[in-house]
Amino acid sequence: MDTQKLSMISDFYEFIMGRGYFCSQKADRYAYFDLYFRRVPDGGGYAVAAGLEQVCEYIDSMRFDADDLDFLRERGIDDEDFLRYLSHFRFTGDIFAVPEGTVVFPNEPILTVRAPMIEAQLIETALLLMINHQSLIATKASRMSYAARGKPVLELGARRAHGADAALLGARAAYIGGSHATSCTLAAKLYGIPSVGTMAHSWIQMFDCEYEAFCAHLRQNPYNATLLVDTYDTLGSGMPAACEAIRDVLLPRGITKASVRLDSGDIEYLSKKARAMLDLSGLAECGITVSNSLDEYKISRLCAERAPIDSFGAGESLITSKSSPVFGGVYKLAAVEDGGVILPKIKLSESVSKISVPGVKKLLRFYDTDGKAVADEILLSDEPIPYGSHTIFDPEATWKTKTLVNYSVRELLVPIYLGGERIYELPDVGSIKSYCEREKATLWSEIRRLESPHIYYVDLSERLWTLKRRMTGQRRSEFFLR
Amino acid sequence: MDTQKLSMISDFYEFIMGRGYFCSQKADRYAYFDLYFRRVPDGGGYAVAAGLEQVCEYIDSMRFDADDLDFLRERGIDDEDFLRYLSHFRFTGDIFAVPEGTVVFPNEPILTVRAPMIEAQLIETALLLMINHQSLIATKASRMSYAARGKPVLELGARRAHGADAALLGARAAYIGGSHATSCTLAAKLYGIPSVGTMAHSWIQMFDCEYEAFCAHLRQNPYNATLLVDTYDTLGSGMPAACEAIRDVLLPRGITKASVRLDSGDIEYLSKKARAMLDLSGLAECGITVSNSLDEYKISRLCAERAPIDSFGAGESLITSKSSPVFGGVYKLAAVEDGGVILPKIKLSESVSKISVPGVKKLLRFYDTDGKAVADEILLSDEPIPYGSHTIFDPEATWKTKTLVNYSVRELLVPIYLGGERIYELPDVGSIKSYCEREKATLWSEIRRLESPHIYYVDLSERLWTLKRRMTGQRRSEFFLR
Repeated sequence: MDTQKLSMISDFYEFIMGRGYFCSQKADRYAYFDLYFRRVPDGGGYAVAAGLEQVCEYIDSMRFDADDLDFLRERGIDDEDFLRYLSHFRFTGDIFAVPEGTVVFPNEPILTVRAPMIEAQLIETALLLMINHQSLIATKASRMSYAARGKPVLELGARRAHGADAALLGARAAYIGGSHATSCTLAAKLYGIPSVGTMAHSWIQMFDCEYEAFCAHLRQNPYNATLLVDTYDTLGSGMPAACEAIRDVLLPRGITKASVRLDSGDIEYLSKKARAMLDLSGLAECGITVSNSLDEYKISRLCAERAPIDSFGAGESLITSKSSPVFGGVYKLAAVEDGGVILPKIKLSESVSKISVPGVKKLLRFYDTDGKAVADEILLSDEPIPYGSHTIFDPEATWKTKTLVNYSVRELLVPIYLGGERIYELPDVGSIKSYCEREKATLWSEIRRLESPHIYYVDLSERLWTLKRRMTGQRRSEFFLR
Repeated sequence: MDTQKLSMISDFYEFIMGRGYFCSQKADRYAYFDLYFRRVPDGGGYAVAAGLEQVCEYIDSMRFDADDLDFLRERGIDDEDFLRYLSHFRFTGDIFAVPEGTVVFPNEPILTVRAPMIEAQLIETALLLMINHQSLIATKASRMSYAARGKPVLELGARRAHGADAALLGARAAYIGGSHATSCTLAAKLYGIPSVGTMAHSWIQMFDCEYEAFCAHLRQNPYNATLLVDTYDTLGSGMPAACEAIRDVLLPRGITKASVRLDSGDIEYLSKKARAMLDLSGLAECGITVSNSLDEYKISRLCAERAPIDSFGAGESLITSKSSPVFGGVYKLAAVEDGGVILPKIKLSESVSKISVPGVKKLLRFYDTDGKAVADEILLSDEPIPYGSHTIFDPEATWKTKTLVNYSVRELLVPIYLGGERIYELPDVGSIKSYCEREKATLWSEIRRLESPHIYYVDLSERLWTLKRRMTGQRRSEFFLR
């Protein structure tokens, strides 16, 4: 999407509230918002945060032109002082966030905003949609690459993505989370991702027979070529023609590496048969890549069954996170400043898990001596980082405690914007991917497993827990007084 | 997405094949591709086609700049003649498509391309992702509006969309398919969609109590205001405060219309209680809007239970088509021209339903005297439109026949591009929505129902059926000869 247009992507209520804060003399009060999510997609044990680069592009280019103001006026946002304010809008606040590629857990802030209320409110929708989308796909890619046990996962989903942005940024997020390459040319170009591409059935159909189509492709693409063998009959015609073409075109040139691609049928059966045919044809160095609505569960089963597959192509299941296509990040007011005093704010709910955590926070991660993450703790921002031994407790079942010793600790939220200036240098996508690999290595496999994972501890400091309990009780007693 | 960048959204294999056709002297052969889908999302009985306007924007702006060519060269697409060809690329072919908002069915072409092979191939990915995305969301919106039985469905999903494009174009598609308004300001601006917006919990939290927050909102937005009542306790504090604020601010001004919004908890129970509270407060003209992960099934149940709800807000379930987030459109070669002769092409598969239909086609829809659609038939392009009585038959169970009499018939695919020139005038989104309403009215409710719908007939003409059978058999006998 054109970044100039992006400023208007906000939900209409952001403008209604923006005008409201402006006219209620609340626009300049500093507010603190936390962005967090409540559940990991697919019932997983962790998520991978992504989308921060796009948040920064958005913040940096935010502006409202005359056309936008005319539209708002026409739709009833007609306070001229407010519209004049918008015409000079720029973000002046602070943003803290976990770097892209960080593994994150439910109910902890992965991004926080401190800004004049009006600014913090106007950016809500865009921040959520960018972080939600890319964290969703990065998390899915991480699951798929875990299932593939070190074999490459190739992202091939553009045609089933929810529009061009979803194809482009989905490819970016998938690469961060664990895929090895993309079929999306634009993503490869903009983000330096390895590109993969083979041929469509139409290529085969344009030649008199598969052998001719394969030979033409191999002559033009002798290195790392992949031949699609299921246009007519995988084992009956595609595989024999592929073996013959590789032998005739590549071997005389001393090239022994190529692949065949299975794109339909029973992948386990076909991969075993195809492997045998390649080996019998003296093509032991040729590999097998597969693609047919693969998700992490199918990949996991194929690996468990020792299907002789060298790489996995992932289409719609990855680019839409098909089995769980929503990353439910929310953006909640945590505090406001009033004359230099920070007033924590809470949102209650009938369901305990939906009550927000009030106050201005920081987020710590504790590691054991092996470098494995053992727990996260959310503290109030003015609390010191614990030193020596430290006891954490479950915020819902408070009798469950754990005392940490010999730990190292890291503060996860880093400053991205201070006073409207971006002070964070955006890493390139390759560096983010490497960082994400290191992040995933800090997790026990019990947390990474696909189903019924171990629940990682995300606890509140005693002060924060007490504040939350006090505010919950206070609000409830107010109701009873009515 | 910036349309300048969009040309590179193609899958990398399109460029590999493009170069291949170019170097194999096949680039200029005219090819025919059909875009169709095999299954309706959510097991529904019909889909709503959408996305054509974005296809046109893409086709009209396609070009490759020096930067793009450098990238392709660097990634091994290094034939300089081909790159020179790309530098002058423009689409010169024909495109036929069903208008946006048309109801469509599996296995019938909803868009066909006739173009030099290289052009038809290069546009594959973009066409698929645009049509797939918007048809998915338009279809979902149609299901939700059917479930709502005439009550408005409001699209509020931007924050859970798969990126900014998905939010913007998803709102567009939802409006076409059946939603009444959007929260996405940019979609409202660009496509003239009614905008809706209320307030976030943060608005409430910024005031000392809900009553104050509601009064401030009502004073600024006296007309069609909606008050969010679940920040602390829906029935205990939110509803009483809302009633009081409406009575204090709106009634003295003679305004009797406003709404409350329920966003959590048991919606059936809360809506009945809220209705009673409004009525008791003399606010009979105030309505109730609800939103809480609503999908067509929940909406349908709420309507069946006679929950007193006036409009339904749909978020993530609509904007991601959460329960079925993939529209599986495919793009298959159907024929090539060779010296003025059209050679049909087929793609076989082990699964009968995946065998493509060869040949250059047209698509007819037959209507009965009530204007209801009774069957679609795919014919070869040179077949005459049947006149008088016409017998159709099931292409898989050929003994199932039906003779149509007193029908009217319509050709569904209309010319969009001829010789690279766009000859189709794009309707505005409001007109597309009205057309879609008329389209849906041509369907029997048995086809529209949410679960286990009646299967609408999509048949092949006898000539086309015979061609397909002959080509399937021919290809198979070729395998047996090996």
